[in-house]
Amino acid sequence: METKVSSLKKEVIIGDTQPTVIIGERINPAGKKKLAEALKAGDLEIVRSEALAQVQAGADILDVNVGTFGVDEVALLPRAVQAVMDTVDVPLCIDSNNPAALEAAIKIYKGKPLVNSVTGEERSLKRVLPLVKEYKAAVVGLVQDDEGIPKDAQRRVSIAHKIVERAEAAGIPREDVVIDCLAFAVGADTNSGLAVLEAIQRIKAELGVNMTLGASNISFGLPDRELLNNAFAAMVIAAGITCLITDAAKVRPAIIAADLVLGRDKHARRYIEAYRQRQRQQIVE
Amino acid sequence: METKVSSLKKEVIIGDTQPTVIIGERINPAGKKKLAEALKAGDLEIVRSEALAQVQAGADILDVNVGTFGVDEVALLPRAVQAVMDTVDVPLCIDSNNPAALEAAIKIYKGKPLVNSVTGEERSLKRVLPLVKEYKAAVVGLVQDDEGIPKDAQRRVSIAHKIVERAEAAGIPREDVVIDCLAFAVGADTNSGLAVLEAIQRIKAELGVNMTLGASNISFGLPDRELLNNAFAAMVIAAGITCLITDAAKVRPAIIAADLVLGRDKHARRYIEAYRQRQRQQIVE
Repeated sequence: METKVSSLKKEVIIGDTQPTVIIGERINPAGKKKLAEALKAGDLEIVRSEALAQVQAGADILDVNVGTFGVDEVALLPRAVQAVMDTVDVPLCIDSNNPAALEAAIKIYKGKPLVNSVTGEERSLKRVLPLVKEYKAAVVGLVQDDEGIPKDAQRRVSIAHKIVERAEAAGIPREDVVIDCLAFAVGADTNSGLAVLEAIQRIKAELGVNMTLGASNISFGLPDRELLNNAFAAMVIAAGITCLITDAAKVRPAIIAADLVLGRDKHARRYIEAYRQRQRQQIVE
Repeated sequence: METKVSSLKKEVIIGDTQPTVIIGERINPAGKKKLAEALKAGDLEIVRSEALAQVQAGADILDVNVGTFGVDEVALLPRAVQAVMDTVDVPLCIDSNNPAALEAAIKIYKGKPLVNSVTGEERSLKRVLPLVKEYKAAVVGLVQDDEGIPKDAQRRVSIAHKIVERAEAAGIPREDVVIDCLAFAVGADTNSGLAVLEAIQRIKAELGVNMTLGASNISFGLPDRELLNNAFAAMVIAAGITCLITDAAKVRPAIIAADLVLGRDKHARRYIEAYRQRQRQQIVE
């Protein structure tokens, strides 16, 4: 199954015969004090520089999230999306839990965006799915619902079914729904990695949809986060994840290695090219 | 299913509720000119120092292979096994494609060894299985047969079935058979990683046996081998591999990260301890 998103001139295809798509996570003020302060002041300079840096580091799509205390997202999200569109030509993942902000940003977006996100909560389904339908967008479906965030695989799978069914009922084709299985810190809950892996495998088998995941939460609170994030990325890609929300500069080499193992990199061309690129950067630095 | 092997005083359990077992690969002259020369001269000093270094680096079991042109394995393998037993107290994986050398080494081994290996070839099954039975050893079953080395998943699975059936018919319990699915360079054959992953998943589902793999072949001929080996290790462990033949010093961190994701490391204790150990070593160096 293929999910197609686009910027003005560029299309990115998410699918399990494609290389894993990287959604750059860095335009998001969560845990980034400097970016949060700049956004509160309406300053989009960091947004522009992060956009450029992430695309140079190999991000295929950029997530744009400006949600932080003291920011009017309805006003600022479209401005941030416009700033990123003016800086780089890659499809965007428009990210907010405020539907009015999503709508304002989708309206001015040129191309087919990924809308991040709808959840299994009634309020979210009713408000976000019509938007996605109206603007012919693709949407990330987060597996949480009115009963909260799931710990086990079974609830993740059930909520994924619900989101896909409701999307289809709203006239959104299944290929435009990308399920996010929600990964949590394995240091806090020993079974959280296993639950996510099981959910991914079952959702792939039962629904066949594309899936994404924030690949950095898993290591929260632990040392040597890159080691754990890299191992986790390889494992979830093998399980069925087709795009990852992550830091391209850090996790891309491991993702390309996983794609190579999975037969998605003929003659190891991307792997060798990425290696040469890292070598050149080391010489420059 | 649990495979138990032992040295004089130490038992190691291979099983999917256990941390992944690391079989140290470095006592093997393939591609190691200095070790090959020493073995030809009957000098076991490198064997002893490699034994010590690998156990310090976290190897749970040590593979002992002295096969190289110009070496009489029947004479030298028992001597090497004795030298390793005199140096470290971990179970050994006695490795030769010469059954007479295997027998000579098993005879003097104290404990329950892992015999590496039997294959699906008639000659091998007939000669090696009775040895394994007689000495109550465990055995690695390589998925190759009289028709050669398999490229696809299906033949690997068929040969695994054959080896397990023949072992059971010879009176060896299934838990004492550890299947090696054989990984080959993904740079030479784009599908080789995928074929191995599929074989692992099917053999786990159909036979339930423990499985091992040489985790370094996959990257042969490619740059940045550690990156690829680490990603591959995480993926095969998630697929069902319960012990890896590898370089403990290089791949152990990624293996421990994979175990953590799979819920085999409560409160991340091993992960954090391994991190601290690496920190201490960096201070010493």
